[in-house]
Amino acid sequence: MKAAVLHGPHDLRVEDVPDARVEEPTDAVVRVTHASVCGSDLHRYRGTFAPTGTARPGHEFLGVVEEVGTQVAGVQPGDLVVSPFSISCGLCPPCLAGHFTSCDEGDFFGGDTTPGAQAESVRVPHADGTLWAIPPAMRDEALFPALLLLGDVAGTGEHAARMGQVAAGDVVVVVGDGAVGCLAVAAARRRDPELVVAVGHHPDRLALASQFGADVLVDGRDVHVVDEVVALTGGRSADVVLETVGGGQEPLDLALALVRDFGRIASVGVFEAGPAMSAREAFGRNLTVSFGVAPTRAYLDDLAALIASGVFDPSPVLTDRLPLVEAAQAYRQMTDRSALKVLLTP
Amino acid sequence: MKAAVLHGPHDLRVEDVPDARVEEPTDAVVRVTHASVCGSDLHRYRGTFAPTGTARPGHEFLGVVEEVGTQVAGVQPGDLVVSPFSISCGLCPPCLAGHFTSCDEGDFFGGDTTPGAQAESVRVPHADGTLWAIPPAMRDEALFPALLLLGDVAGTGEHAARMGQVAAGDVVVVVGDGAVGCLAVAAARRRDPELVVAVGHHPDRLALASQFGADVLVDGRDVHVVDEVVALTGGRSADVVLETVGGGQEPLDLALALVRDFGRIASVGVFEAGPAMSAREAFGRNLTVSFGVAPTRAYLDDLAALIASGVFDPSPVLTDRLPLVEAAQAYRQMTDRSALKVLLTP
Repeated sequence: MKAAVLHGPHDLRVEDVPDARVEEPTDAVVRVTHASVCGSDLHRYRGTFAPTGTARPGHEFLGVVEEVGTQVAGVQPGDLVVSPFSISCGLCPPCLAGHFTSCDEGDFFGGDTTPGAQAESVRVPHADGTLWAIPPAMRDEALFPALLLLGDVAGTGEHAARMGQVAAGDVVVVVGDGAVGCLAVAAARRRDPELVVAVGHHPDRLALASQFGADVLVDGRDVHVVDEVVALTGGRSADVVLETVGGGQEPLDLALALVRDFGRIASVGVFEAGPAMSAREAFGRNLTVSFGVAPTRAYLDDLAALIASGVFDPSPVLTDRLPLVEAAQAYRQMTDRSALKVLLTP
Repeated sequence: MKAAVLHGPHDLRVEDVPDARVEEPTDAVVRVTHASVCGSDLHRYRGTFAPTGTARPGHEFLGVVEEVGTQVAGVQPGDLVVSPFSISCGLCPPCLAGHFTSCDEGDFFGGDTTPGAQAESVRVPHADGTLWAIPPAMRDEALFPALLLLGDVAGTGEHAARMGQVAAGDVVVVVGDGAVGCLAVAAARRRDPELVVAVGHHPDRLALASQFGADVLVDGRDVHVVDEVVALTGGRSADVVLETVGGGQEPLDLALALVRDFGRIASVGVFEAGPAMSAREAFGRNLTVSFGVAPTRAYLDDLAALIASGVFDPSPVLTDRLPLVEAAQAYRQMTDRSALKVLLTP
């Protein structure tokens, strides 16, 4: 089968690889009909802070179950499914609490152990605990791009708003104008805030954040972001900052500078090893800071219902569509910012 | 008048100083009838991480208003009052939100600018926004030691439980067996947890934590604290850790080791400059961490009602009572751990 293979920084190729197959009795194999490229795929692609060896990327996918192991009971061949980016058994105490990204048997698609889904097919470990079967009423192809995004970026935006405990009347500042930033704006907007400010660096992406419900757009290349937010809020600053960038110390420091005393920061950005928050600063200011890799499976039912009812459509973050064989082009476009997010169709 | 004066590490003397007097129209002068020594006074006394110059300590007091400035309207001479450890104007946006420790005009008793209350009298800036007048029904001398403690340690224990969002059914681990630790145990217990574990190093103090509602006592000198909590909870670990020690990296790391993934840490310990929390670890584990200097004034009404109704009595943390002139003895006893907390009566 064809699959995207990352050979090193900026060297992604679509190649023939052995077919995905059931290896464990709890596995399923899914024929991928929709996959997408995530901002977090770019960390490894650019060689910034993830391992740079060969990898099989892709952790957002939708497709059709082709084969299941003998112990799989929840899905069967022919089922249409969406997958979270994380693998979860569904049975351990963290899974039973909805904390799927802390599963005792957990893993991530596209890491060093489980090949990813930018491929014609993908092996899904712990299929019963991982896959989400699309209910009959939602088996409408027009909804598939939106449903696909529930596996990562839409669920991650939701997670930011939940961790940040965004509530009615809040001033919310969303740092980052990528797909997660835009969808964190949408998640904040659903919670009746007083004001949602989107902070980014790209006018086209900020325009999209506006479409998802940002009241004010702040382009960090044009203005001093903290001064601008202080001015916008009459000195109040942000009740909640949703930080969606991660990486180094800079986005964390920006969030700390934007939040008011007694405020909250929720960060869903992926961090490298160094960045840290000073206990003394947080103590003096009474800050609550949440960091977290989103258990998107926990939000699938709720967000899918919003999509089916027409209240929520995350699909505009998919600015481009390419066939799987042109995956390298997708990575190039996302790296040079000419695409926000690319849908790959095998 | 007599006042405690810290001349340098371990050199505290009670000396004659100029009488406290009204300096600003918003000041009051309070004749101190009850003052206490706080664990945080010991940082500077021991020269560990606060400035070591001359200081006038004391930030927990109860007394009688003697004189007020021309702009003071909320209290008058003769009123019995309790004071929070922090000075707050009561009028700025943070004060109006109850965030008194972030007051725009805020300060702390016993710091470098406002002399403290281990003295016969104390000047109280922003008297209207700072002092809490004891309601007539509570003017019972037997309640005064308990009410005194609402100014800091009892309110700080309450703050820990609120920031940690302790809720029914939680496994709560309280790190630290000082006065704040004991009163954080009490605050957690009020919230119907499944289990409260007190972690400390002193059998007598842990016994007091038990009196305040700890179900299990863990002496860190006898056992490996993390292993013990994991075993006690059948592998679940703490839903919430209330960290009351502060200082260096060690108590923060212990809290991080004790909390389950997707759990919460609330730290009310005073930190020195270095300690920090790794964004990467918190991200991978979905941790929410709150740090904060307690706005104890915000909790005075509620906690005083609990005291008046007999539901709550923090006064057992006052293990010793000495006249003000023996303040040096009080500091020595608290430093060598032969007293948990000393009440000074001028």
